[in-house]
Amino acid sequence: MSGSSLGRMFRVHTWGESHGGAVGCVVDGCPPGLDLDLDAVQAALDRRRPGQSRLVSQRKETDAVTLLSGVDPEGRTLGTPLSFVVPNRDARPGAYADLADVYRPSHADWTYEAKYGLRAASGGGRASARETVGRVAAGAVAEQVLAQRGVEIVAWVEEIGGIVAAPVDEAAVTRADVDAHPTRCPDPVAAAAMEEAIVAARADGDSLGGVVRCVARGVPAGWGEPVFHKLEAALGAAVLSIPACKAFEVGSGFAGARLRGSEHNDPFVPGPDGPRTSSNRSGGIQGGISNGMPLRLRAGFKPTATLLRPQESVNRSGEPVTLSPKGRHDPCVLPRAVPIVEAMVALVLVDHALLQAGRESFAATR
Amino acid sequence: MSGSSLGRMFRVHTWGESHGGAVGCVVDGCPPGLDLDLDAVQAALDRRRPGQSRLVSQRKETDAVTLLSGVDPEGRTLGTPLSFVVPNRDARPGAYADLADVYRPSHADWTYEAKYGLRAASGGGRASARETVGRVAAGAVAEQVLAQRGVEIVAWVEEIGGIVAAPVDEAAVTRADVDAHPTRCPDPVAAAAMEEAIVAARADGDSLGGVVRCVARGVPAGWGEPVFHKLEAALGAAVLSIPACKAFEVGSGFAGARLRGSEHNDPFVPGPDGPRTSSNRSGGIQGGISNGMPLRLRAGFKPTATLLRPQESVNRSGEPVTLSPKGRHDPCVLPRAVPIVEAMVALVLVDHALLQAGRESFAATR
Amino acid sequence: MSGSSLGRMFRVHTWGESHGGAVGCVVDGCPPGLDLDLDAVQAALDRRRPGQSRLVSQRKETDAVTLLSGVDPEGRTLGTPLSFVVPNRDARPGAYADLADVYRPSHADWTYEAKYGLRAASGGGRASARETVGRVAAGAVAEQVLAQRGVEIVAWVEEIGGIVAAPVDEAAVTRADVDAHPTRCPDPVAAAAMEEAIVAARADGDSLGGVVRCVARGVPAGWGEPVFHKLEAALGAAVLSIPACKAFEVGSGFAGARLRGSEHNDPFVPGPDGPRTSSNRSGGIQGGISNGMPLRLRAGFKPTATLLRPQESVNRSGEPVTLSPKGRHDPCVLPRAVPIVEAMVALVLVDHALLQAGRESFAATR
Amino acid sequence: MSGSSLGRMFRVHTWGESHGGAVGCVVDGCPPGLDLDLDAVQAALDRRRPGQSRLVSQRKETDAVTLLSGVDPEGRTLGTPLSFVVPNRDARPGAYADLADVYRPSHADWTYEAKYGLRAASGGGRASARETVGRVAAGAVAEQVLAQRGVEIVAWVEEIGGIVAAPVDEAAVTRADVDAHPTRCPDPVAAAAMEEAIVAARADGDSLGGVVRCVARGVPAGWGEPVFHKLEAALGAAVLSIPACKAFEVGSGFAGARLRGSEHNDPFVPGPDGPRTSSNRSGGIQGGISNGMPLRLRAGFKPTATLLRPQESVNRSGEPVTLSPKGRHDPCVLPRAVPIVEAMVALVLVDHALLQAGRESFAATR
Repeated sequence: MSGSSLGRMFRVHTWGESHGGAVGCVVDGCPPGLDLDLDAVQAALDRRRPGQSRLVSQRKETDAVTLLSGVDPEGRTLGTPLSFVVPNRDARPGAYADLADVYRPSHADWTYEAKYGLRAASGGGRASARETVGRVAAGAVAEQVLAQRGVEIVAWVEEIGGIVAAPVDEAAVTRADVDAHPTRCPDPVAAAAMEEAIVAARADGDSLGGVVRCVARGVPAGWGEPVFHKLEAALGAAVLSIPACKAFEVGSGFAGARLRGSEHNDPFVPGPDGPRTSSNRSGGIQGGISNGMPLRLRAGFKPTATLLRPQESVNRSGEPVTLSPKGRHDPCVLPRAVPIVEAMVALVLVDHALLQAGRESFAATR
Repeated sequence: MSGSSLGRMFRVHTWGESHGGAVGCVVDGCPPGLDLDLDAVQAALDRRRPGQSRLVSQRKETDAVTLLSGVDPEGRTLGTPLSFVVPNRDARPGAYADLADVYRPSHADWTYEAKYGLRAASGGGRASARETVGRVAAGAVAEQVLAQRGVEIVAWVEEIGGIVAAPVDEAAVTRADVDAHPTRCPDPVAAAAMEEAIVAARADGDSLGGVVRCVARGVPAGWGEPVFHKLEAALGAAVLSIPACKAFEVGSGFAGARLRGSEHNDPFVPGPDGPRTSSNRSGGIQGGISNGMPLRLRAGFKPTATLLRPQESVNRSGEPVTLSPKGRHDPCVLPRAVPIVEAMVALVLVDHALLQAGRESFAATR
Repeated sequence: MSGSSLGRMFRVHTWGESHGGAVGCVVDGCPPGLDLDLDAVQAALDRRRPGQSRLVSQRKETDAVTLLSGVDPEGRTLGTPLSFVVPNRDARPGAYADLADVYRPSHADWTYEAKYGLRAASGGGRASARETVGRVAAGAVAEQVLAQRGVEIVAWVEEIGGIVAAPVDEAAVTRADVDAHPTRCPDPVAAAAMEEAIVAARADGDSLGGVVRCVARGVPAGWGEPVFHKLEAALGAAVLSIPACKAFEVGSGFAGARLRGSEHNDPFVPGPDGPRTSSNRSGGIQGGISNGMPLRLRAGFKPTATLLRPQESVNRSGEPVTLSPKGRHDPCVLPRAVPIVEAMVALVLVDHALLQAGRESFAATR
Repeated sequence: MSGSSLGRMFRVHTWGESHGGAVGCVVDGCPPGLDLDLDAVQAALDRRRPGQSRLVSQRKETDAVTLLSGVDPEGRTLGTPLSFVVPNRDARPGAYADLADVYRPSHADWTYEAKYGLRAASGGGRASARETVGRVAAGAVAEQVLAQRGVEIVAWVEEIGGIVAAPVDEAAVTRADVDAHPTRCPDPVAAAAMEEAIVAARADGDSLGGVVRCVARGVPAGWGEPVFHKLEAALGAAVLSIPACKAFEVGSGFAGARLRGSEHNDPFVPGPDGPRTSSNRSGGIQGGISNGMPLRLRAGFKPTATLLRPQESVNRSGEPVTLSPKGRHDPCVLPRAVPIVEAMVALVLVDHALLQAGRESFAATR
């Protein structure tokens, strides 16, 4: 029943409903002695928060984070659990009163009731993207641990509403490049078209989906647990757990399934720290274990289920009803999904880094 | 470090190297009192084993399974661990002697060495698809548990080498339909073309990839753990953990990312046991929880990394080498991937079924 | 690294240092639909808090608990994580400044430094009994779930400073009986002697240990996971994880090791709901599984390590030092240990109840 | 439902019923590159097996172990799962036919039926001490890993049938000392008396219990996870999971509960590698973390439940019955419990060693 926990060595437990008093997380297993940069945690939350541009939900949340435990007076991590709390300032539970008996299409209203026998009637409860506040705070801590080993993670919007960005230099792209446009697409031409499409969809009371691409540079060879916990399996689970994510691929993905082996295999060539590959269709992972090349992955997000136009549905009594448009929402979640994908990748990598560190320390082969 | 274990309530632990003495698994958490059908377990292994057609590896394994524990003399499960063993009859460790110092492209030779400091020099060790013997045996047990609740899982080959099958009636397709052709593609026209493509690729010493599609019918609403262990996340991890799998999608997947919300949302309509949806782009999952509609997913597999043609690589000393073609292999893993996908889906579903059963039993709302 | 988490179905994650901003816990896996009684949670914390009598630490904490998530507006549990926060009102981090470089005897100062490379210099950090606030809040929720099944748990002080209480009627003793005296010993004669001993020890700047006995009535047969997670193993781990606990026994315990089998075996006799035993040296557990009789266990606590008298020790530089008496403390933890033992027993039982519920629901034998 | 698994980094999964085809275990997480000494594994099983002296069960088992996976041809561990199998040669399922409907007193017959709805009718199934074969094999591997760090574990019989051995030099006692007498009591005078008591009890068709003491030398400071997974909690759970174990204590245990703090505290004194303590009532653990001193623990075992004399009980229909004496058994499990206690302690320590190794590697404080 511990669906709200992730990780084995670096554990994250998130909590909080969209329209309750607060949201947050407990991070257990952060290595001790880290000079925790709380400003970086806040900055990560600022990249995720609503209201940051006209393209996203206008819910008014400052998402100011408080840390209640786990550091000494100098701000160094103690190795004990970090407890983060973010108040819900603009919760409007009453705004959903007339939806309490209705199942919104492609939302989780019906499934939560089927599972639990009741649900948070307001704005999705735990199924809301507001739950990801805790993930992003935890991910920002994970990134600080990974930075000690030279790992950096950058995600960006590659596609919105069918508009596809030109290829990006994956070895060089930075978060500053990504944040240069509110769509978080680093191709300015595509970004402008995407923005226009989002504005048009919103004007129609409609919504758009898209694709986030992510690269993790500096991951050493040897991370990932074979068989069931292969690195691509752990990354896939983490990314697919983000609300609205329906598709995941690593390296060449579905497109690679159309190549012949002679076209797809990545030849090994001598490198400074062991072999490298001259192409990277493997996406930095072979046999479930990182190979020292950059990790490469993509995530597909469906269009937002909330629409500002009438929709047909049924209510709890099984009667057909027409839903009236209502509430604040994101006409396209992609810009805000970027920091969430980065957080999930960071959480998976730090966990595997710690798992491997224990093994290496005891391996008689070293 | 427990990469070889899957599940929380219905636990599977696989073991065994490709060219060691045996492979197998321990299944812990199978509900008691089940009249275990060992013939069905053997039949599942027979669908996975090499040598079953001219399209797959000619390694000669009968894959005869022995059960060493967990049942009473009448064959009923005791609720205690089931230990399955399958001997390796046609292991040829010596055949790989000249590969011991070489890293085969897009295989796990280099990454296992990077991780462990040494590796099973013969045929991939745990990274070999032979490891999936244990998964398929466990999956066959899981299917027997699920059958009690009316769940049935059918997977098939949808695409090989770029050849795409015509859409299949997902409500009706059976394993007999799928097994009618050795490609395991139920569209006879596409199947014939796929077979031809596989034969041609093998003649070139080359290999092909493709896509498996899977449907699970009869899953009730309410399975799946919110937030990090959403049903699509668990299914994604399970499927992506299959050797050579690089891509996963549920419901509309990447294609759905190009629709507008008004095109993508699944309208609710009254149904006999609660609401149903008139379309199923959600793939049977909303908010990470099954909604009572069939589960729908796809998995993309890269072309087999083993080629029967020369390839460039490096050896352990970092010197360039040319690999000579060698060994038995599958020119296309797709036909044998079908029962493995089914097994992984079964293992995820039975685990979530048991998790939910405990909660339901205690819910004050029932 | 997740030492701060307990349970598999009913998960508890505690956080917070003794002299940080707050302490608390996240409870994940509470069944949905429970009318959560927050007053009962507060009442449990009141039984644990310092300052409740002259026999315990005079640290001034109201231990007022706030619930930040997991319930609907009517106070029913949603099945999602419950986040409890209790502020530290009387934290005095400065009071420990001169202890920052010294290892207090039989405290965790040295071991935390050895493990983490640094430690919370103030009052024990996570090793402080203040960490148990989160346990008691979570235990109070667990008790409400268990009460639905008729389980009740009562613990009491059986021994302090070598003074042993007369046997108590384990079938009838109540918490009111236990709370009738500030020692929480329901034998008034022994209680008076214990109180005198505690007062005398405190006057000497010294401390006392003792024994808590606990009974859980109404536990049905069938709870407990065989082999490594036997009920006595889970109870033992839970109770031994309480600060200062050094010994645990179930049923006849160490004394039973001196009996012959013919004296020790519990004969079965016919009962209304299956067999009962005419004695209960098994302590309600056979083969790691509850047998329907009351659970019986004992826990031994060492005397408080903090003394208000000078002690010899060493500092971080390895030099001998004399510790001056300092700080608030409990001259005897036993009275406050009673609700903590109850909480730990409740947490173990609810977890096993939920594990068993899932199995039962699927057992073909039912 | 994974009661048959132990550990987080060094995972053990045992399987097998007492009178099924075989028993065994899978060990997942053994560090790679270890020159695995299979003779040492066999030697550990030989110390556990029945028939090794006239004091124990005369069931005829050679307990010859086979390793099916996880090592390379040179016998070095690959870091992948080790699968151990031990056939049951002298299983006699038919011998228990007339017990199929009867609940033997203080056995697990009734509780297994209550839990699972059916049970292995022969000799206890998984509740039999035969299940510990897998534990001892796994423990022998764990000891080889620990030996790399200089850890050694020695257990011995301290008490049988109320006969208490003279104190042993815990810093010097060896397994050879312990094995010098078939009782495994290193005090020759007490050993002779214990042997006589066992022989007398057996002649009466009766049985005896007792106490095992164990010391682990060479454990460095810093092992153990605070709060719920304190080292004493993990050790307690592991030891209490051994069949017939009813009591556990670490360091001063219950006796320490009668001391004053000024008598109990262990003063720190300067040592070569950090502080040491001049006494060891803490048992080598403070705040749940090892402090660099030897670990010290005791385990109490009840007398064997199987008696060779008539006993009163009830059958499945709830009718009173008289059990006739029957079967082979140990009149006293203590001599055979010694290697099992050592195995459990080794399994806990290696798991915590690996957990700590990962943390240390990443701690910014190092």
